Amino acid sequence: MATPLHLEKLPKSLELVFSDDHAKLRYLDQRYLPNECRMVETEDWHDVCDAIAVLGVRGAPAIGIAGASAIAMWVENQAVIIDDNDFSEALQLVANDVIAVRPTAVNLKWAVDRTVAYALDLLDNGCPFEQMGSKVCSFVQELAANDESCNRAIGAAGAAVIPGDAKILTHCNAGSLATYFYGTALGVIYCAAEQGKVQRVYADETRPLGQGARLTVWELAQVGVPTTLICDNMAASLMAKGEIDCVVVGADRITSNGDTANKIGTYGVAILAKHHGIPFYVAAPSSTFDFALKTGNEIPIEQRADCEVLPEPIAGVDIYNPAFDVTPAELITAIITEKGVFAPSELSKLKELL
Amino acid sequence: MATPLHLEKLPKSLELVFSDDHAKLRYLDQRYLPNECRMVETEDWHDVCDAIAVLGVRGAPAIGIAGASAIAMWVENQAVIIDDNDFSEALQLVANDVIAVRPTAVNLKWAVDRTVAYALDLLDNGCPFEQMGSKVCSFVQELAANDESCNRAIGAAGAAVIPGDAKILTHCNAGSLATYFYGTALGVIYCAAEQGKVQRVYADETRPLGQGARLTVWELAQVGVPTTLICDNMAASLMAKGEIDCVVVGADRITSNGDTANKIGTYGVAILAKHHGIPFYVAAPSSTFDFALKTGNEIPIEQRADCEVLPEPIAGVDIYNPAFDVTPAELITAIITEKGVFAPSELSKLKELL
Repeated sequence: MATPLHLEKLPKSLELVFSDDHAKLRYLDQRYLPNECRMVETEDWHDVCDAIAVLGVRGAPAIGIAGASAIAMWVENQAVIIDDNDFSEALQLVANDVIAVRPTAVNLKWAVDRTVAYALDLLDNGCPFEQMGSKVCSFVQELAANDESCNRAIGAAGAAVIPGDAKILTHCNAGSLATYFYGTALGVIYCAAEQGKVQRVYADETRPLGQGARLTVWELAQVGVPTTLICDNMAASLMAKGEIDCVVVGADRITSNGDTANKIGTYGVAILAKHHGIPFYVAAPSSTFDFALKTGNEIPIEQRADCEVLPEPIAGVDIYNPAFDVTPAELITAIITEKGVFAPSELSKLKELL
Repeated sequence: MATPLHLEKLPKSLELVFSDDHAKLRYLDQRYLPNECRMVETEDWHDVCDAIAVLGVRGAPAIGIAGASAIAMWVENQAVIIDDNDFSEALQLVANDVIAVRPTAVNLKWAVDRTVAYALDLLDNGCPFEQMGSKVCSFVQELAANDESCNRAIGAAGAAVIPGDAKILTHCNAGSLATYFYGTALGVIYCAAEQGKVQRVYADETRPLGQGARLTVWELAQVGVPTTLICDNMAASLMAKGEIDCVVVGADRITSNGDTANKIGTYGVAILAKHHGIPFYVAAPSSTFDFALKTGNEIPIEQRADCEVLPEPIAGVDIYNPAFDVTPAELITAIITEKGVFAPSELSKLKELL
C-alpha cells in the first residue's frame, strides 16, 4: 500500500534570493533541528563559509549550492571592481576560500568552479559589471533547481531497485536537508514509498554530530515514512535478525573506480551489509563524481574537532574524529544517479554520458 | 618498553562490608563518571537492585558480586526468620527479584545462585540464624576476592596472545569498573602493558550509554595506558588504515558453542575484524559461561528504554535499543579465561576443567 507522503512539510534547505540589487542566502540552520526550524538570512559570503564550516548547511549537494551562492553573493554584494584582471583574480581567491571550507565533498568545488567559470565567461563576453550579479544569481538558482530535478530522477531510478515491503537502513542524512530539495538516498526512499514499497526506514544516529538522530528521523517523520532510530552500533544486530532488506546512503565523492567517500561509519555499514548478503546502494548526482581521481585513496578526508566527540576533555585521552571514510567499490552493489543505476564496474558508461 | 601502570588509582568498584552486625554495600555509582567518583553506601538490598537496573553498578562480573551482596544484605539486615521453610522460600523470592533485574549477563544468576545455595547449606547444617549473615557475607567477600584473582589470571593468559607494540580496540567497558577489580578485557591489556606490549588502546564510545567514553577511557587514563576515544562508527576506518592489531572485549554470557552475548555493537566489531583479518578475543571468567545453553539464540536480550537513545522523543519516530547482541563463535578467534585461552571449538575442554 502506498504511503501518503507530505513532502510539503519540508522546507527548502537553502535558497539564493535576488532582490533590490542584493543577493542573499536564506538557509535552514540545521544545528537547531529537530527542536527548532530556524531560518537564517545573510548577504555576506563569509557567513556562508561559516555556516558550511559549522554544518549549519551540510550535505554534499547542499554545500555545493551554498558555495555557489557565496560566489554569487560576492559578485553582487561585495566585489569592488576595478578592472577585469582584478575581478577574476579576486573571484578566484574567494572561490579558493569557499572550496577550502570542507575538503571531502567534491560537489562544493564542482558548483563553485562552475559558477566562477560562468562569471568569467560573462566577463569575456563583455557583460557590463552591473549586470553580472543578477546573471550569476540566476545561474546559481538554476543549479539549485537542477539539483531538485536530479534528486527526483535519482529517486525514480533508485525506487526500481528497492524490493517490495522493504525495510531500509540509511546512515547520516542524505535527505532533502542535504540537498536543495528532495534528497538523494532519502529521495530513493520517498519515491519507493510513493510506490508503496517501503515498510520502514532504520536510521543510524550517526555520531558524533547526530545527522541521523537529529535530521533524518525528523525529515522522515515530517514526510510520513515509518522510521526507527538506532545507534550506529545496532545495525549489525538488525541485519542478523533479517530486519534490513537493503542499505541506501548518499556520497560526498565517488572516484573513477566507484570508491565512495561518505559520512564516517558508511564503510563499516557496507562491510556489515556484505557479511549479511544485503544489497548496499549509494545514491548521488553526477556532481558527486570525481573522475580525475582513480581510487578512494586519493580523496582528502576532513578531520574535525575533538570536542565533537568529547565535549569535556579527559586528561590523557586522545580523540580520533574523521568526518568521512571511504567505502571501496567492491562493497557497493550499485550507484544510483540521475542518469540511471550503475554497478561500480560500469562507471565508464556514466562518464561517457556526462 | 614497559608502561608503568597506576592500578592504585582505581577504586574497587564495589565492596561488601560487614561491621556492627550490619552488611552494607559500598559501590562506585558509575553514572557520574568521569566527572565524579561518587561512592555510595547502602544496607538495603532493594537499593542494590536499583543500582544494577540503572547501571550505577554494571559489568557482568560486578553485577554478579552486587547481586550476591544483595542476598547477603537481605540475610543479615532484612530477613525476618520464623522457620527454615519460610527462610528458604523468602530467600528464593529475593534471589528471583535480584536475578530478574538484568536478564542477559549470566554472572548475576551464577553469583546469586551460589550465594543462595551456600546459605541454604548453612541452614541444612544447623547454622544458628544469628550467625548466618556474617557467614554469607564472608562467602560473598570471597567471591569478590576470587573475581580479582580470576581477572589477574585472565590478564596473564591473555597477555600471551597480544602481539608486541599492539594497537588494541575494545568495546564497552570490561575493565576494573566492570568487575570487583582489575577487569577482564582491560585486565588483558593491563597485563600486556606491564609487559611493554601495548602501544595504544582505541576505545569505542559505546552508545547509547557511553561506557567507553565515560568509563573505559577514564580508567585507562587513570592507569596510564595511552588511549584514544573513537565513535562506534569509526572502528572500520581505523582497521582499514592498519591501526588495529587485535580486538579484546568482555562478555555477558557465553554458550556451549562459543556464541557470546556482549554489549550492543560487539557483533558488528567482530564482523569488521573478520573482514580485515584482525584477531578478535573475548575475555571472561568461567562464571560467564552458560553451558546449559547450546547457542546464542537461546540468550535473552535485554531491551532498554527509548530515552537512552533519544532523550526528547520525536513524534513519529520509533527507537530500537537492545542492550546486547550475540557474536557467533565463528567470528571469535579465542576466548581468554582464568583457565587459559580456548578457541570456541575447544570449549568442551574448559567445561571439563570446571
